[in-house]
Amino acid sequence: MGMRPDFLKSVHSPIPLIDPGRVRRNIHQMAILAKTAGVRFRPHFKTHQSSKIGEWFRDAGVTGITVSSVAMARYFAESGWTNITLAFPFNIRELEQLNQLDEMAEIHLLADHPDTVSALAAGVTKPHRVFIKVDTGYHRTGISWKRRDKLLSLAKQIESAPNLSFAGILTHAGHSYHADSPGEVQSIFRNTVSKMNQVRKTLHEDGIQNCVVSIGNTPGCTVTDSLNGVDEIRPGNFVFYDLMQLSIGICDENVLAMALLCPVTGIYPDRNELVLLGGATHFSKERFRNETGETIFGYGIGVTEAGFGPLNREIRLIGLSQEHGIVRASAETIRKTRIGDILAFVPVHSCLTADLYSVYLSTSGDRIPRFNSVSARSAQLLPSVNNNSLSF
Amino acid sequence: MGMRPDFLKSVHSPIPLIDPGRVRRNIHQMAILAKTAGVRFRPHFKTHQSSKIGEWFRDAGVTGITVSSVAMARYFAESGWTNITLAFPFNIRELEQLNQLDEMAEIHLLADHPDTVSALAAGVTKPHRVFIKVDTGYHRTGISWKRRDKLLSLAKQIESAPNLSFAGILTHAGHSYHADSPGEVQSIFRNTVSKMNQVRKTLHEDGIQNCVVSIGNTPGCTVTDSLNGVDEIRPGNFVFYDLMQLSIGICDENVLAMALLCPVTGIYPDRNELVLLGGATHFSKERFRNETGETIFGYGIGVTEAGFGPLNREIRLIGLSQEHGIVRASAETIRKTRIGDILAFVPVHSCLTADLYSVYLSTSGDRIPRFNSVSARSAQLLPSVNNNSLSF
Repeated sequence: MGMRPDFLKSVHSPIPLIDPGRVRRNIHQMAILAKTAGVRFRPHFKTHQSSKIGEWFRDAGVTGITVSSVAMARYFAESGWTNITLAFPFNIRELEQLNQLDEMAEIHLLADHPDTVSALAAGVTKPHRVFIKVDTGYHRTGISWKRRDKLLSLAKQIESAPNLSFAGILTHAGHSYHADSPGEVQSIFRNTVSKMNQVRKTLHEDGIQNCVVSIGNTPGCTVTDSLNGVDEIRPGNFVFYDLMQLSIGICDENVLAMALLCPVTGIYPDRNELVLLGGATHFSKERFRNETGETIFGYGIGVTEAGFGPLNREIRLIGLSQEHGIVRASAETIRKTRIGDILAFVPVHSCLTADLYSVYLSTSGDRIPRFNSVSARSAQLLPSVNNNSLSF
Repeated sequence: MGMRPDFLKSVHSPIPLIDPGRVRRNIHQMAILAKTAGVRFRPHFKTHQSSKIGEWFRDAGVTGITVSSVAMARYFAESGWTNITLAFPFNIRELEQLNQLDEMAEIHLLADHPDTVSALAAGVTKPHRVFIKVDTGYHRTGISWKRRDKLLSLAKQIESAPNLSFAGILTHAGHSYHADSPGEVQSIFRNTVSKMNQVRKTLHEDGIQNCVVSIGNTPGCTVTDSLNGVDEIRPGNFVFYDLMQLSIGICDENVLAMALLCPVTGIYPDRNELVLLGGATHFSKERFRNETGETIFGYGIGVTEAGFGPLNREIRLIGLSQEHGIVRASAETIRKTRIGDILAFVPVHSCLTADLYSVYLSTSGDRIPRFNSVSARSAQLLPSVNNNSLSF
């Protein structure tokens, strides 16, 4: 165990901490996987949402990225990214905001409905490549991989629109997150690739050429033994990983790269509990059930100047209200803890936790800015709304 | 059914909408309840976190408020509130931030541990009144109401510190949220008041005078038939209410005053589902199980220029990922819905949803600013941390 970083003394309220060595290693390993397989690595930036961490991806050779909102696309375009896939069935109410990005970056789009394509065809002011979202079994969005008629018709509609061109097919096997084992994730991944290649073959038979096959996600990309039949991967969460990924078994604890620092505000030895300033507004309410049936919102982790130490599953975040976090731990841990101590917790879902901040600290003592989601969501212009109550 | 407000046409991404008539009525009714009972009304502002909505409380005669963080206290102090209870066991790492508020407002504090009181005694630069947090059965924070020794010792410690004075006892009967019926909430409330008065009596016998009894929360304050034995109430959620309160049965749907506007980005008639741009980052992941066993993250609600229409339980938000919301509804609703439509959803927990924005719209077409939690959480100064990576 190394020394605790000195700057922890200055932390006074919850703030996310990253281990930059682990983040860079996670990026490097995924980049190598893609390079070895000859597959394009287009990482999803919705997890870290940081221009600084984006630079570390550039260092690993990344030139194209994935985002999930127009506002996030703008943030990364302003940081110099010029090749961006907006991997959300396009929200046609944001056409104007999309067009405003024309000079800054090439934004590839996603659609699964003819009305979305019609609105794009009528509204874009620059050529865009459009992917069709394919449902390979997650049943959230996308056209079912079995619906040859619908897939073909949408592809032709895209091809016939003057400013649009068909980019390929894109899927997200989100059902991987319900898998119980790496083996099951692997099997879902293989199955997904197989379905996507059947769709590509079908489209090809009907005269649609140049169909890129683009596949998410962290569980599948982490455990797969083959990327045959895949042109592009878009994992995102692997940059930090989290307890969700650990609980599926697709990673080990040595890749966990983000934790939330929280001050201890209460000690309750009678029930072996601590209370943190650190609640639902600081962690998000994402949870999972551990081996013993406890509902878990986070596990403790050691922090040193050199990076994160071992995960401490004995220190369990078992309850969250708006601003309180309830921690259960051994009598010994409770006895050693003092009011005002700073503890670090790995969250269940790093994407959601990180989204509640516009900065990270790093174990090496840097401040790493990120996109402020609340400001972006609230800044939308509403021309017909009275602004007279905007008093500050 | 009235007309839909015209400004909905300008909404392009998720944003919270309030019905100002309902908000004012909710405030008025709670103010009347307190006034009639001769009890101080010190509403918790953590739900709305808006200086503008704060004004509506002032219109109802409110002069003292409750908040849950030092940053929130600062925001409301800057809006002219001078009498503020910070109802969270004080986080001793924020002493400096507390002292910075000295000139602006009187901040009453909360403690349940001798080390917190010692740190306050050593660190405050101005007199503060300190409440003891009492655990009356929720078992989150507080000294158990049964522990006469601990309660007395902490009260004496507070009294003997030069800059601190004992304000009284404060409790939050959070277990009301696990109640199944208004009757059960009522019974928890009565039981809470009874325990608090036993504590007051005990302290009085030991020479501690002037002990205010301060009690939360929305469920209890909404349904109680008596405020005997209570000096101060601190409900917060009642300003908007939400599906959680509705599911406990303590309110009817006509008081629901906040909903999230979301654009429809996908339509899936095969499974009677829609997909919204509106996910966990827009709603929070708070959920409940409805009568039919479905997990619910929100219900649809009508919106007119005159305010909210009826709750539409048939339009159910049944799944959330980071930015997607999955809605299930009748075949007829699905058939009538178009890509790009804006739907309104009442969230399960209005406090957590509102915390993800720094503005509300109102049905009458105003923009109502609120505290930006992400900016506040991320703005903390860390003097010993390198700022050289703060590149924008």
